[in-house]
Amino acid sequence: MITDVRVHDVRFPTSREKDGSDAINLGDYSATYVEIESDSGLVGTGLTFTNGRGNEITCAAVRALAIHVVGREPEEVRVRELTQDPQLRWLGPEKGVIAMASGALINALWDLRARAAGKPMWRYLAELPVDDLIDSVDFGHLSDAITPGEAREILEKGLEGYADRLALLESAGFPAYTTSVGWLGYPDDKVRDLTRQAVADGWRAVKMKVGGPLEDDVRRAAIIRAELPPGALLMMDANQVWDVDQAIAAMGRLAGFDPYWIEEPTHADDVLGHARVAQAVAPVKVATGEAAANRVIFKQLMQAGAIGVCQVDSCRVAGVNEVLAILLLAAKFGVPVCPHAGGVGLCEYVQHLAIFDYLRVGRSLDGRMIEYVDHLHEHFTDPVTVVGGRYRLPSKPGYSVEMRPESIAEFRFPDGPAWR
Amino acid sequence: MITDVRVHDVRFPTSREKDGSDAINLGDYSATYVEIESDSGLVGTGLTFTNGRGNEITCAAVRALAIHVVGREPEEVRVRELTQDPQLRWLGPEKGVIAMASGALINALWDLRARAAGKPMWRYLAELPVDDLIDSVDFGHLSDAITPGEAREILEKGLEGYADRLALLESAGFPAYTTSVGWLGYPDDKVRDLTRQAVADGWRAVKMKVGGPLEDDVRRAAIIRAELPPGALLMMDANQVWDVDQAIAAMGRLAGFDPYWIEEPTHADDVLGHARVAQAVAPVKVATGEAAANRVIFKQLMQAGAIGVCQVDSCRVAGVNEVLAILLLAAKFGVPVCPHAGGVGLCEYVQHLAIFDYLRVGRSLDGRMIEYVDHLHEHFTDPVTVVGGRYRLPSKPGYSVEMRPESIAEFRFPDGPAWR
Repeated sequence: MITDVRVHDVRFPTSREKDGSDAINLGDYSATYVEIESDSGLVGTGLTFTNGRGNEITCAAVRALAIHVVGREPEEVRVRELTQDPQLRWLGPEKGVIAMASGALINALWDLRARAAGKPMWRYLAELPVDDLIDSVDFGHLSDAITPGEAREILEKGLEGYADRLALLESAGFPAYTTSVGWLGYPDDKVRDLTRQAVADGWRAVKMKVGGPLEDDVRRAAIIRAELPPGALLMMDANQVWDVDQAIAAMGRLAGFDPYWIEEPTHADDVLGHARVAQAVAPVKVATGEAAANRVIFKQLMQAGAIGVCQVDSCRVAGVNEVLAILLLAAKFGVPVCPHAGGVGLCEYVQHLAIFDYLRVGRSLDGRMIEYVDHLHEHFTDPVTVVGGRYRLPSKPGYSVEMRPESIAEFRFPDGPAWR
Repeated sequence: MITDVRVHDVRFPTSREKDGSDAINLGDYSATYVEIESDSGLVGTGLTFTNGRGNEITCAAVRALAIHVVGREPEEVRVRELTQDPQLRWLGPEKGVIAMASGALINALWDLRARAAGKPMWRYLAELPVDDLIDSVDFGHLSDAITPGEAREILEKGLEGYADRLALLESAGFPAYTTSVGWLGYPDDKVRDLTRQAVADGWRAVKMKVGGPLEDDVRRAAIIRAELPPGALLMMDANQVWDVDQAIAAMGRLAGFDPYWIEEPTHADDVLGHARVAQAVAPVKVATGEAAANRVIFKQLMQAGAIGVCQVDSCRVAGVNEVLAILLLAAKFGVPVCPHAGGVGLCEYVQHLAIFDYLRVGRSLDGRMIEYVDHLHEHFTDPVTVVGGRYRLPSKPGYSVEMRPESIAEFRFPDGPAWR
């Protein structure tokens, strides 16, 4: 039984170095960090990433939602109790602060379950019976795109060839790409050096930020492309700054650098806008999802043919259960999933999701890559291991977002030494 | 200059009486109530409505945003400073708690400006120069639907015939409809009595809640329709409970009662779903907007032909400026605006918006009605006046959401006597 929920406001002063800077995000990377205590003696940990000031708001939302968790068994909590709480849903519904806080709590519940089973999260999920997986998904407002029956079919197919896929991952790891070469705030020389280093380290897919003055984007794209070996992928990320027609025009200029995808070319809520961009920039793919609030947005992106790469976030949506719905939608519509990572703990989280997706849902590595950003991993007790541009399978029990006690103490806001 | 921002957590125990109950909302009506003090001695007031528990989260968001306001002149604050704050926007972006908190603050700024001018909000807005109105709108991500030039044209046309329209409103008031007859939690007899009373009071347009068991909806629709005189409008509101095909099927059953519109037939984020429902249920109109987060959602609803009635909310979106963008979109696409009201102070707010829309933007009363719910008006110093099913023009300076000090003291959470 769950006996207590604790929440910590942990912030890292990343904005001082312009790490993580892009067209719109300039904040201090922060975590709303949740610990769920149980009478088994195990502690489940979850977090939601936020970009700076305002973490106290997400912490308040976790506290408001905690009543649905305390006094319960972790398996018994229904996700709709949190996402459809009649006294709280007005604050979303199913979006923003309240979805993110739900995500932190729900992920901590899953972490606790995986720890109790002694398995890493990906394995715990991948070995769950089909019925349990189906039962975890809120199919509400999805039936015009996917039914529980269709989802069951996908998950049952996921049992075929499972051992082979697992063996492949165990030997070769999961493909990844790096976003660390081209943050918008970095000077040209740093971008060139970082790209050269990334290639030397084995990376064959890198992402740059665009959406500043177009001539700067063009110059930086040329620098990066010149450093990449033939066949390497260059992705571009506009972080929503462009209007629809502006995105189409900008990609006309940038197409010469053979981008593999353009990420968030316009406002994250603009399904129809993404669809227009997708049509105009093909064969360049449109990637989006890190700011998509819930399964209903993803449903529409897929129905409209607006999304070529599904970048679901592990804790912007309401946690593992909502991610499951989105993975199933992606499989139904044949859209590859390349989860959003970076931030605080997102790489640690999403490796489990991508591995589970390959093993049980999507069943292909074609076009699948996990984002990798080399910031802040040192604060976690089970950080990701990335070798030669590939994630190694995590093996410790749980969802890998447990933070080191000394990091929490150091960066706790406002009383940690880093902030005093 | 603004010298201080104060925020109060005010909650009314409405859930005890099932006032305001519908298919998904069962909370205690609450206000995140903002007072902006200025060195002129004037106080600007704004609020955002929430449905119960969790008001402390919106209050925290107001506090986080207040740094953009304190020390500034009210006219000088740019709305993007709040909605695009690089350290806070991750929490939305432009949706949920952070948009609602922005709305409370931005509305209080406008209230302060209108008070300084000695005008009710509708008149203050309606008498602003075109340039100032255009300058207030964030056209970001709208250019594929409306340009500043097109908006200017609409607003300039709004000067023609202005005096006639104003004279009409002054003599006849603004058309309204009532939602007080058919809350989901009310027994049949109460529904019948309330409808009869509403007709006797002059109402010719009433709204009922649907989305419970369909047979109950059918029975209640029959009761209400039987009480209405010929030609009276009956609207239905499903508060998002249906899946898309379920909505279409349910409206097939309910069409016999000649509904004028079906409101929120499915998930508020589901633009494509609303478009399918709109096609299927025509000539019944689809009404939506009270849970639409921002101008980009409204843009798509209009582009997709998914919305027949625009029910913008005064404080779910980021305040007056965002509402201006939505009114302009609605005028461009020819969609009548019937703002969402009820809750706490929403009737007080939206009367100003509807009047301004008629005077300067939409320029027609065809299909225009302001929602009216007869709850909680006694807590305001300048409550709405509704006579014979029509709103009378408010005449006191400001935006009409100033609460009585004794109400704030009584219902302040958790220390007010009502909650002790």
